Amino acid sequence: MARIAVDMDEVLADALGEHLSRYNNLFGANLSREDMIGRALRHAVPLEHAHHAEALVHNEDFFADLAIFPHAQEVLSRLSENHEIYIATAAMEVPLSFRSKYDWLLRHFPFISPMNFVFCGDKGIIDADYLIDDNARHFSRFKGTGLLFDAPHNQHVRGFKRVHNWLEVEEFFVREAALV
Amino acid sequence: MARIAVDMDEVLADALGEHLSRYNNLFGANLSREDMIGRALRHAVPLEHAHHAEALVHNEDFFADLAIFPHAQEVLSRLSENHEIYIATAAMEVPLSFRSKYDWLLRHFPFISPMNFVFCGDKGIIDADYLIDDNARHFSRFKGTGLLFDAPHNQHVRGFKRVHNWLEVEEFFVREAALV
Repeated sequence: MARIAVDMDEVLADALGEHLSRYNNLFGANLSREDMIGRALRHAVPLEHAHHAEALVHNEDFFADLAIFPHAQEVLSRLSENHEIYIATAAMEVPLSFRSKYDWLLRHFPFISPMNFVFCGDKGIIDADYLIDDNARHFSRFKGTGLLFDAPHNQHVRGFKRVHNWLEVEEFFVREAALV
Repeated sequence: MARIAVDMDEVLADALGEHLSRYNNLFGANLSREDMIGRALRHAVPLEHAHHAEALVHNEDFFADLAIFPHAQEVLSRLSENHEIYIATAAMEVPLSFRSKYDWLLRHFPFISPMNFVFCGDKGIIDADYLIDDNARHFSRFKGTGLLFDAPHNQHVRGFKRVHNWLEVEEFFVREAALV
């Protein structure tokens, strides 16, 4: 039984897909996930669009209907049988997102109690054995083990165990359990 | 340098005062803090009012203008010079409160970064050396030291270091520092 903290954006929810789609619609652009390799959206757009591109996230409905990554539900559901699952999202960066993030989690992960949702800023405050996150910066003050969830922007990040999808996450914990 | 997590309702913010005032207004009652000794509001009111009394908190503006407890600002400001301060509030119990809690904290504690706000349910997820809270149930899964902030409802709770006000909190940490 491990305590596993799971990030939301880019780990459970396809926030980048939504961001690209809103940006492309607004500017008649055609940016794809491949254009995001090694960088954030604001660095992939013309300088004069960077501010607007960033602002798209600061919208009450941005997080309301994000697509969910393949196998996230089924794997978390199975993992929750033997592990304690917390959702830890850096919601303080986008205060307008609180309610839609909460509703999204309730809708897609009814088997996780809201008492296990954590809206925070700095994830160094999280007391867990593992943190699955696409942003390696959250691992620096986290005392447990970080698992880097593969995302275009983190392709050049080294030094962490990388998981590419939810089936790999499950495999990782099955193997960990076998080692105990 | 310790990491100190601080609860919000009944520790920084006078949620009980607001609750009593709303209840008394609604029902023409005259309940006081003394009537709350050893019990929650819902247990201090006639059975047929209990549900209504409880529901008063589930209101978007309930948390918007709570009074702040004496010396909370100045003591936290001084403590933040030598310690890492996080605000950890069980906001998941009242999802409507997210935004007003966030705004209230920004307004009254501008010297604490929102990156140090944690909206959670179960506080066992908090990795800190100390947790100042009026609800002892949050200490059971917390690995650090709990400081029970005196409140009418917790008068009969034993087994924890009790602090009666913010000047006592400061004294506690000054004494701890002297022991190191």
